[in-house]
Amino acid sequence: MAAKEPEIIRDKDQMRRWSRAMRSQGKTVGLVPTMGYLHDGHVSLIREAHNHTDLIVVSIYVNPGQFSPSEDLSTYPSDFHGDIQKLMAVPGGVDVVFNPHNLYDYGTSKNANAAARASDDARVGNGGNGVVSCVEENGLGHETWVRVERLEKGMCGQSRPVFFRGVATVVSKLFNIVEPDVAVFGKKDYQQWRIIQRMVRDLDFGIRVIGSEIVREKDGLAMSSRNVRLSPEEREKALSISKSLSRARLAAAKGQTNCKELRDLVTQAIHESGGRLDYAEVSM
Amino acid sequence: MAAKEPEIIRDKDQMRRWSRAMRSQGKTVGLVPTMGYLHDGHVSLIREAHNHTDLIVVSIYVNPGQFSPSEDLSTYPSDFHGDIQKLMAVPGGVDVVFNPHNLYDYGTSKNANAAARASDDARVGNGGNGVVSCVEENGLGHETWVRVERLEKGMCGQSRPVFFRGVATVVSKLFNIVEPDVAVFGKKDYQQWRIIQRMVRDLDFGIRVIGSEIVREKDGLAMSSRNVRLSPEEREKALSISKSLSRARLAAAKGQTNCKELRDLVTQAIHESGGRLDYAEVSM
Repeated sequence: MAAKEPEIIRDKDQMRRWSRAMRSQGKTVGLVPTMGYLHDGHVSLIREAHNHTDLIVVSIYVNPGQFSPSEDLSTYPSDFHGDIQKLMAVPGGVDVVFNPHNLYDYGTSKNANAAARASDDARVGNGGNGVVSCVEENGLGHETWVRVERLEKGMCGQSRPVFFRGVATVVSKLFNIVEPDVAVFGKKDYQQWRIIQRMVRDLDFGIRVIGSEIVREKDGLAMSSRNVRLSPEEREKALSISKSLSRARLAAAKGQTNCKELRDLVTQAIHESGGRLDYAEVSM
Repeated sequence: MAAKEPEIIRDKDQMRRWSRAMRSQGKTVGLVPTMGYLHDGHVSLIREAHNHTDLIVVSIYVNPGQFSPSEDLSTYPSDFHGDIQKLMAVPGGVDVVFNPHNLYDYGTSKNANAAARASDDARVGNGGNGVVSCVEENGLGHETWVRVERLEKGMCGQSRPVFFRGVATVVSKLFNIVEPDVAVFGKKDYQQWRIIQRMVRDLDFGIRVIGSEIVREKDGLAMSSRNVRLSPEEREKALSISKSLSRARLAAAKGQTNCKELRDLVTQAIHESGGRLDYAEVSM
C-alpha cells in the first residue's frame, strides 16, 4: 500500500468542519495529541488509535500554556517535515495533521490589553494563584483555565506548577476543535493520563480516553522527544531511571511490600548514578 | 396548534444520544440552561432560541457547584410540574427537558474518599484556593473546575467566590452532554453571560452563545425566580434597583459622563430605599 499523505490543517474552524463532515458520514475520529518531534512512542499511540476509530487526527502543537517562562518552550525540539515522513510510514497512516499556529491568540488588541492585566493579576497571584505560563507572559487575552485540583498537585505538579493546568486546558481546546470519539495518551506521562481521564469524567466530555503503554529504547530508556538533548553521559545516567524501577518491581515481586523500602531502592540507584531526583513515589 | 409535550430526559448518555441523533439528521439544537421555577424571562430565552435552531433543549438543574454552603441551595424555589406547563405554553414549545438528578455524582466509593480529601484540600485552601461549593461540601469526587480567571473576580464574584467557577463548570458539562449548536443566556446575569462568552472563546467550544435581553415586570423589576421570596416590603424596595439605573441612564443621556457621579446616583437611590448594596459599577 502506498504511503498515505496526511491532510495538513492549520485553521480551527476548518479542522472542526472536517471532523463534523466525517462524523456525519458515520465515520469515527481518533485524536492523538502531540507536541511533534515524533518518535516510536508516538507511533505506538497512532497504532493504538487505529484499533478504535476509522480516521486519525494527529495534532502537532507545542503548547505555551503548559510551559513556565523559565522552562524550555523556545528550545523544544521540532522537525515538522520529518514528522510528516514518520506519519506516512505508519501502517494505515493518519488522515489529518492538525498544526495550528497559536491556539491562544484571539486576535484583537482589546484582548492584548486584557491579557496584560490578566498577566499582572497572575503574577501577583490573584485569580491565577500566582501561576504564570508563557501564555500570560506573552500577554495574550486567554484567561480560562481548566484545573483538576487534586490530581494536579502532587508528583510532577510540585516541580511544574503551570504544567497540568496548561495540559488540561489545551486538551479541552483540542477536544472542542477536533470533536473526536476517542483520544489516545501515553502512559509514560502517567499523571497526565490520569488527569485527562478525570477531566473527561468531571466535565462530561463525550470522548473515550485510552492509555497506551510506554515504548522504550532497547536499553530500557523510555522514549521521549527531549531525549535528543541528552549528552552521551546524561543518556547513560538516564538509564538509572528504568533500571531502578525494574529493581523495585523485582523486589516487590519477591514480596517486599514496604513502599518506603521500595522507594529507597529507586532513589538510591538514581543518586548513585549521579542523577538529581524531583520525586519518586511508590504506593499500593 | 396543540401544545407540544417535551420529552423529559434525566440520563446524560441518553441526552447526548438524542442530540447526536438529531444532528446526524441535519437538525440544529439550541440549549437554554435554567435552574427551573420558570418565568417569562426564561420564556423569552426560549423564544430567542427558536430564532436560531430547529430543536430546543431546556435544562432544569439547580447546580450545587455554584452555591456556597452558606447560600440558598436547599431553599431554591422549584416547581417541575408547573415548569412543564409553562414550557408547553411557549409558541413552538420545546423538544426536550434535560433534568438530571446529580451531575457531580460519579457513583463510586473511591470517588467519595477522593472527594473527602478534595474537600479538605479546598477548605485549607490549596488547589481549591479556599473556595468550597456544595459539591465539595457533599463530599462528591468531582475535582475539575473551569475558571475564567479575570472576569470571575469583580462585581458578583466578590460577594460570591464560588459562583462563577460553578457556573463555568456546569455550563461546560451541559455543553459536553447536550452538544448544542447554540446556547442562550439572559443579560440579567450580565457578568455570567460575558464569562460564558469568554469561556467559549478560550476553550474553543463549537457553540454560538446568544445574549437575550432582560425581561421586567410592569413596574420595572427584573424577572427572577428568587423574586417569589421577597416580602411585599422587600418587593417595593427592590424597585429602587431599576429606578436608580434608569435615573443614571437618563443623566448619562443628558451628558453626565463622570462615572463616579453616575454611580453615586445609583447607590444613593438604593440606600434611600433602605436597600443594602453589594456593589454598583458604572464604566464607559
